[in-house]
Amino acid sequence: MTNKKPKRASSRAPKNGKASPKLEDLARAVVAMAAREKDPSIEIPTRSLSNVAYNEKTRHVEMGANKQSRNFFNYGQAKRFMQTLLVGSKCKELIDMGKTASIRQIYYLAKHTIKGTKEKTFDDQSESDPIIEDLEVAINALREELHLFASNRGNLAGPITLVDAGSTLDCAAMGSAGYAVPSICEPDVIQFKKCKAKFILHVEKDTVWRRFHEDRFWEQHDCIISHGGGQPARGMRRLLRRMHEELKLPVFVLLDNDPWGYYIYSVIKHGSINLAFESRRMAIPDAKFIGVSSFDYERCDMSDDVKIELDASDIKRAKQIANYPWFAGKRPWQREIKKMLTNGFKMEVEAMISKDLSYLTEEYTPMKLNDKKQWLD
Amino acid sequence: MTNKKPKRASSRAPKNGKASPKLEDLARAVVAMAAREKDPSIEIPTRSLSNVAYNEKTRHVEMGANKQSRNFFNYGQAKRFMQTLLVGSKCKELIDMGKTASIRQIYYLAKHTIKGTKEKTFDDQSESDPIIEDLEVAINALREELHLFASNRGNLAGPITLVDAGSTLDCAAMGSAGYAVPSICEPDVIQFKKCKAKFILHVEKDTVWRRFHEDRFWEQHDCIISHGGGQPARGMRRLLRRMHEELKLPVFVLLDNDPWGYYIYSVIKHGSINLAFESRRMAIPDAKFIGVSSFDYERCDMSDDVKIELDASDIKRAKQIANYPWFAGKRPWQREIKKMLTNGFKMEVEAMISKDLSYLTEEYTPMKLNDKKQWLD
Repeated sequence: MTNKKPKRASSRAPKNGKASPKLEDLARAVVAMAAREKDPSIEIPTRSLSNVAYNEKTRHVEMGANKQSRNFFNYGQAKRFMQTLLVGSKCKELIDMGKTASIRQIYYLAKHTIKGTKEKTFDDQSESDPIIEDLEVAINALREELHLFASNRGNLAGPITLVDAGSTLDCAAMGSAGYAVPSICEPDVIQFKKCKAKFILHVEKDTVWRRFHEDRFWEQHDCIISHGGGQPARGMRRLLRRMHEELKLPVFVLLDNDPWGYYIYSVIKHGSINLAFESRRMAIPDAKFIGVSSFDYERCDMSDDVKIELDASDIKRAKQIANYPWFAGKRPWQREIKKMLTNGFKMEVEAMISKDLSYLTEEYTPMKLNDKKQWLD
Repeated sequence: MTNKKPKRASSRAPKNGKASPKLEDLARAVVAMAAREKDPSIEIPTRSLSNVAYNEKTRHVEMGANKQSRNFFNYGQAKRFMQTLLVGSKCKELIDMGKTASIRQIYYLAKHTIKGTKEKTFDDQSESDPIIEDLEVAINALREELHLFASNRGNLAGPITLVDAGSTLDCAAMGSAGYAVPSICEPDVIQFKKCKAKFILHVEKDTVWRRFHEDRFWEQHDCIISHGGGQPARGMRRLLRRMHEELKLPVFVLLDNDPWGYYIYSVIKHGSINLAFESRRMAIPDAKFIGVSSFDYERCDMSDDVKIELDASDIKRAKQIANYPWFAGKRPWQREIKKMLTNGFKMEVEAMISKDLSYLTEEYTPMKLNDKKQWLD
């Protein structure tokens, strides 16, 4: 069926970055301890809520300074010590080969039976995933720098030309589904070439995005439109951050009027609590929330067809979010969340279509973008 | 923030097709019945398992001839009669405007309160979704021809140049996530321009696809590699079918060795039971299953690290699938499924990586493609 051609070097994988020497340093330190007949250990910053704080100055959710030691000569830590070095060595191999792997693939690569025993290095992927996060914080590298990728999700369109794995792509002419944002968006994979966009409009869902794309919103408004297919994946967050930082593009976010929408905005803006150590590479503290706001029901004279009743978990979640340190001190956010609770209902971006198919793209969003007073920060 | 430019006609939406006159015919028939003072009604083919059969000749899962009448002067049918006409008229508007909408958006477009009452035309999207399917079968048109889209999912890469919504795209140079396959892949949106590929390799998951893409499998083997992010969405199935039919490309499918993998293959090959009326536009009866086979554990000398124990629902599902009429008569499939049950475990495509990161793309898949005896039909 198939005639194999001579193989060319892969042009898809990221190039050797800083993670490789950091992994070597980690390994060397362990070897040195062993040589000095000391108990080999690795210092790992604590990844728990108690070690996470909001930094008022950077406006990032950040990790604190707490660390814990993982020792080889400790019955409770020996297995995880070994697993950490094993995952580290597999990542080093990936980097050296110029290849990448999914976290599932790294699990399969690192899983084996220890000679002479029936003991497996990993019983389950749920054991290797946290080890990857440990390694990221231990050597202060993003997962993508370790050559690991997640599922890719999210698309964009607009007047930007970029180079992705060697191919030059004009995102104003990428077809009806737009440019597919990959999982790894580091500078060695993606470079920006030309950009005529003046801002980025990020929406939650692909179906909403398609409305904007079909109506050629990006062309009319000189902007980039992107979506993350729900909670944006790491690749999309990293690319948004890089376009914001390197191309000086303001980021506007349009999400459903529900606690989940608030949460997505919170993650885009300040970083996530679970993965706080990534904030400095992913968070966009200047991102603005333009809607859907709880006040839009009256402001836009919506019919009650768009109301979706809040349930108990919505109410609980909304109150939690109101108490996030980065929302707690902001009166406009407190008003916004309180209004949702008073309304007793939530609304989707797509609800704006109940007025008219083009209301969302031709009236609502331009109105929101043009009136700074309606932005939430 | 934004300066609105003069608007251009959308180039993203499909052009007027055959669905528009069919919708008009439906409406005219209803009007004519009313004019003759007859009870207005619509004939809708029955969408239930009892009206689905496997056609041995076409090798499609097909709908039977059973129909049911939906009448206006019938207390139990009046609401759904009205809903059917309402959704039909909204689709006609979409077609006339040259725009498309998601099934969520059509729900919002068609939902309103009936004048002088508190009655809503639709209480919930769960009411409008089946009406859309009714309409599809009633006028014998694909959802996409009614200008409705689903979420888009799936990517491809390889030596094929296509035109998507007016943009010419070389899928051999579309970046690390490949060409994003849209939800609507009808000929008025996507045209094939140039194709040097000799076959299509379709895999289940994007993480597996990335392995093939990074290793430039499509370049070495002159093929197109595609994935559907799990069960392929309608857009991907339609595009695979069109490439198979119009470009004469054989389709090879590589899926996890579990009942879900068998099921995905079954849908790609013969069509789905729930949406049997689409088979004639989506099914690929000549598609071949190349793996992962239950016999590959021994054939490829895998270690027991790759075994994932079958649970009760896997076993039940495998037995159901073995009884599908299109598998029941095929000895190789019976052997394959029986072997999985005897093994007592399932395996993922990614498990092939446990040997070596490149084993999957450099040894396993070429071996499978080159040995016809290992294909399952």
